[in-house]
Amino acid sequence: MTSPDINPDAATEVAIRQELTLVALGKRSADVALRVGRLLDVATRTWALDQEIIIKGRRIAYVGPAGSYSGEVARRIHEPDLSAIPGLGEVHKHIESSHLTPEYEAALVLPRGNTWTCEASHEFSNVNGARTLEFWLKAREAGSPLKIFPLPGSAVPPTGYEHGGGYLGYDEQKAFMRQSLMVAGLDEVMDWPAVWNRENPSYERLWGMIRATFEQRGVVEGHAAGIRDLPTINAFAAAGLASDHEAWTFEELWDKLTHGLFMELRPHSLPDVIRGLLDRGLQDWSQIAFTTDDRSASDTLKMGATDYNVRLAIESGLAPEIAIQCATINPARHMRLTPWVGSIAPGRYADIVLLSDVQRFDIAKVWADGQQVSEGKRYLLDVPKIDWPEWATKTINIGRALTAEDFAIHAEAGRSTMQAAVLRPFHWDDHFLTYELPVEDGKVQRDESRNITKFSVIDRFSGKGAVSRMFWVGCGPRTPDTALACSMAHDKHNIWCVGSSDAAMAKAVNAIARNDGGWALVREGDVVATVRYEVAGLMTCRPPELLHEEMQALYAEGEKIDWMYEPTFSPRWFPGFPERLAFATLTCAPWRWVLVAPSEYAPQGLVNVQTGEVQPVVF
Amino acid sequence: MTSPDINPDAATEVAIRQELTLVALGKRSADVALRVGRLLDVATRTWALDQEIIIKGRRIAYVGPAGSYSGEVARRIHEPDLSAIPGLGEVHKHIESSHLTPEYEAALVLPRGNTWTCEASHEFSNVNGARTLEFWLKAREAGSPLKIFPLPGSAVPPTGYEHGGGYLGYDEQKAFMRQSLMVAGLDEVMDWPAVWNRENPSYERLWGMIRATFEQRGVVEGHAAGIRDLPTINAFAAAGLASDHEAWTFEELWDKLTHGLFMELRPHSLPDVIRGLLDRGLQDWSQIAFTTDDRSASDTLKMGATDYNVRLAIESGLAPEIAIQCATINPARHMRLTPWVGSIAPGRYADIVLLSDVQRFDIAKVWADGQQVSEGKRYLLDVPKIDWPEWATKTINIGRALTAEDFAIHAEAGRSTMQAAVLRPFHWDDHFLTYELPVEDGKVQRDESRNITKFSVIDRFSGKGAVSRMFWVGCGPRTPDTALACSMAHDKHNIWCVGSSDAAMAKAVNAIARNDGGWALVREGDVVATVRYEVAGLMTCRPPELLHEEMQALYAEGEKIDWMYEPTFSPRWFPGFPERLAFATLTCAPWRWVLVAPSEYAPQGLVNVQTGEVQPVVF
Repeated sequence: MTSPDINPDAATEVAIRQELTLVALGKRSADVALRVGRLLDVATRTWALDQEIIIKGRRIAYVGPAGSYSGEVARRIHEPDLSAIPGLGEVHKHIESSHLTPEYEAALVLPRGNTWTCEASHEFSNVNGARTLEFWLKAREAGSPLKIFPLPGSAVPPTGYEHGGGYLGYDEQKAFMRQSLMVAGLDEVMDWPAVWNRENPSYERLWGMIRATFEQRGVVEGHAAGIRDLPTINAFAAAGLASDHEAWTFEELWDKLTHGLFMELRPHSLPDVIRGLLDRGLQDWSQIAFTTDDRSASDTLKMGATDYNVRLAIESGLAPEIAIQCATINPARHMRLTPWVGSIAPGRYADIVLLSDVQRFDIAKVWADGQQVSEGKRYLLDVPKIDWPEWATKTINIGRALTAEDFAIHAEAGRSTMQAAVLRPFHWDDHFLTYELPVEDGKVQRDESRNITKFSVIDRFSGKGAVSRMFWVGCGPRTPDTALACSMAHDKHNIWCVGSSDAAMAKAVNAIARNDGGWALVREGDVVATVRYEVAGLMTCRPPELLHEEMQALYAEGEKIDWMYEPTFSPRWFPGFPERLAFATLTCAPWRWVLVAPSEYAPQGLVNVQTGEVQPVVF
Repeated sequence: MTSPDINPDAATEVAIRQELTLVALGKRSADVALRVGRLLDVATRTWALDQEIIIKGRRIAYVGPAGSYSGEVARRIHEPDLSAIPGLGEVHKHIESSHLTPEYEAALVLPRGNTWTCEASHEFSNVNGARTLEFWLKAREAGSPLKIFPLPGSAVPPTGYEHGGGYLGYDEQKAFMRQSLMVAGLDEVMDWPAVWNRENPSYERLWGMIRATFEQRGVVEGHAAGIRDLPTINAFAAAGLASDHEAWTFEELWDKLTHGLFMELRPHSLPDVIRGLLDRGLQDWSQIAFTTDDRSASDTLKMGATDYNVRLAIESGLAPEIAIQCATINPARHMRLTPWVGSIAPGRYADIVLLSDVQRFDIAKVWADGQQVSEGKRYLLDVPKIDWPEWATKTINIGRALTAEDFAIHAEAGRSTMQAAVLRPFHWDDHFLTYELPVEDGKVQRDESRNITKFSVIDRFSGKGAVSRMFWVGCGPRTPDTALACSMAHDKHNIWCVGSSDAAMAKAVNAIARNDGGWALVREGDVVATVRYEVAGLMTCRPPELLHEEMQALYAEGEKIDWMYEPTFSPRWFPGFPERLAFATLTCAPWRWVLVAPSEYAPQGLVNVQTGEVQPVVF
């Protein structure tokens, strides 16, 4: 039975449950009895003392008072001092943002209690949409005990003004949902203008995906960033988008929660929101879950994974049992995954977190798929060796080596200055900025005295060597002949590059292409650091510690650079190494003016994604 | 937009939501603004004061403080003194048990707050399985505002020892679930021996239906009557059965609730269970709903519909707001119907119950599909006229008129007494009873001195005039030449008949056949009362008041009869008119020995449905 119980289809599921039924009745033998000091039932939010969990294969067959099971058991384990809770779930996480392939993600997060993840797959989907399921189901097929429930990206492409890497519409989503029961629904619908505006070029595609998801009784996840006014919150819910994870304040959260949205809390606003809900006297928390969304492996090593979110909620004043529900049964029920995860109950996967201290949320051991997988923070299993195929590893296709000329912005003949349309990171204003910039040798020039540098998006899918470039303010290196580039450029994941010289920019991008993806830093003309994301240009197939070291080396070199800075709308845009430029290429709400790779629609790449307006980068 | 929004498919759903989105934003005009004194948000269990609900077509487009909606509204209504809550839902109801066709059920239950029903369709399914969906979707297509979400019966046939009327297996359930999004899943899995025992003749069929339901992400409803020991509760949950509505005590309910089952409370045990849960200090009620299961139109007229269940919970000490959740968001979430029902939120149907007193749960008005449908108990709409086709109305097919000889039980030649295998209503024992009975004219005789009469099941599907008969104790008429028969015989719905003479039994059954179904009472040789269930032999296409009158006439004639009585296991088996014999033909758990229509497997019809053992009725 064990071997097919991995990413089960309905027929396999039936066979598993037929056997579990007999095991529960004591008519077939069980594999393990895990006896625990106490056990949390998340349906009633109550503890039961001295319970035994009877396991067959990867599943729970029986739960009851110690000694009550009538059948034969091969192996008995007793943890009298530990408290058992269900494996923690992520209701909305981009594993890509850990920059680890799923088998290494599993090894990292399982000891931190995270046994199942609704994979919000618009990163990988944007790189190779057709392979979305194949990619996310592979690690488990190779032996990794983390349950990954992929939600194909709705934002593929993120807007109608982007292209390459994949196209997911009605047919594709229908096929995904039919292909595997592991597919829980449609990943966060982000392109709000394409939802409400029939003229938007993504309107038909996006509603096609929603339709296919409804047809197969899946969940349509939402993303309502910047949506705070009551009419738009109402419209968002009316559109059938079932959730949001973008509320920044208690007031915003409350308006969304009371308008039918399932609310997923991210750590950055979780403490405020929890305190607000407690002040408001909230008694029913069933429409609330916690979510990580994006977290790098380095941050997970430092802070924790899902356990961090739970701990933060407890520290914010929430009862531990409610906090645990927000990471177990609540998200499982919302995602319609209760037959498999979310509670320690018969038929579910035997995924159990054993706590030595509930209030402090100290995890002693984690079980997944019916076996102990960690002791403290130590992962006990071997990470399966996966030779990721070329469709996963050869995803950088620029077509040729770039040169300084690819980043030049030419002036009109005879002009000594040009007007430039300028953006800054997280510039959510309705209008771009306008600067007058000097011209030299027929090319428009940066102006470091006004914090103005050059920012570029390089098409990495079509092989045409297509480059968009424009001037940005308040980011990038002031140090000469210096550039930073990365193949993580949310959400289309072309390559972005910011630099103080065109030659340095070309050099940085070419270094990334040689590495099949990742980061490259050029300082004063030399490549001084690279980080490899050789899988999809987003992840690496290596242990998190190695990735962390490489990132630290990158940061160390970055420290030697003088980075420009200006504050912007987002509270998460910091001085120093501009790592978050990877999110400054986002094109979903609340973004307006953005730079995308050159397309027929926007040959220079500067486009307003709310209105479809295009604009020359200099004029 | 209005016209297609009835039993929507995914494409229609998308079109509806595209328009609702624009209405919420104020870019398209709305039909109605319903302003209310206060409004219950069931996600947070909180009241908001002076709110307006903006309606377009049959749906809610916007909810917010009075005056906050920015768009145009055709009609404004103000109910300053009323409290708005979502339309009440039935998580598990056999509309057949009201004995009204769905359009008349709607007229009866809507004024009582019930706007949506998960139709547990194993009654109709057992009569005409193939037409299950067509039947249940028809009333709404004809203009009835009650939302009916059919769950095809898993018990078709109820056991492998019964036949006729339909056969639902993998292929049929797959087709149903693909045919309509209104199909929420699989109706209560009742045949427990067929779930766990591979040798059971229904094993493959039943698991096939479960498989098809899993494949389409539907909900598999359970029925765990008599399942009270921990191993079997565990096995039941392990089998993937998601719910139960058969817990009779708090202890039983608690064991099931804490083993992963969603618990649906029926009125008969609801007060005890609610008090038990309150004593236990339950804080999280999200895994609990209320259910009516079976209730006749007469009882609904007297007690109420879903409103009765809510009121009973409040009277049992539950906070009204929690009681309302148990009939709105909780069942909607369990059934994965939250996009359509369960809350007053954008995108959902505009089904709103307006209360004049929350604690007393006094319903002043009900809205459904965006219009007011009742004032007090008065239904304001016309009941649509449906000419039910012959596949619904001509379902009694005995093949010929029956005679006394059809009910005779012949003795072995030369015997003056015979041993008889005897049952009584709700006889859940492992063994049948054995009586020695006299023989006259070669036929085994009743013995009224020992409360022994004859009970019969008449095949009404095959047209072969096949009749099972045996002796029962403690039920039926002592009055001579008297018989009672009915074409509601759970769950296979053949005709049952109990009588003091074989001729009276034949006469009663023939009267039912002439009426296309229902009840017939023969007293001292004459048909003295009939009740018509001309649709599927279970329902009538008439107002509840007429049916009620007809039932009262039947009861009045029944009063003139001397009915035998003996207590039995079930607390719901009463002296007097033996109406509940219609449930004494059940063959699901916890039943053992039952009488079914003659089959190849059990030619005399007496079979143990737990073991498959058969037994001659006399020996």
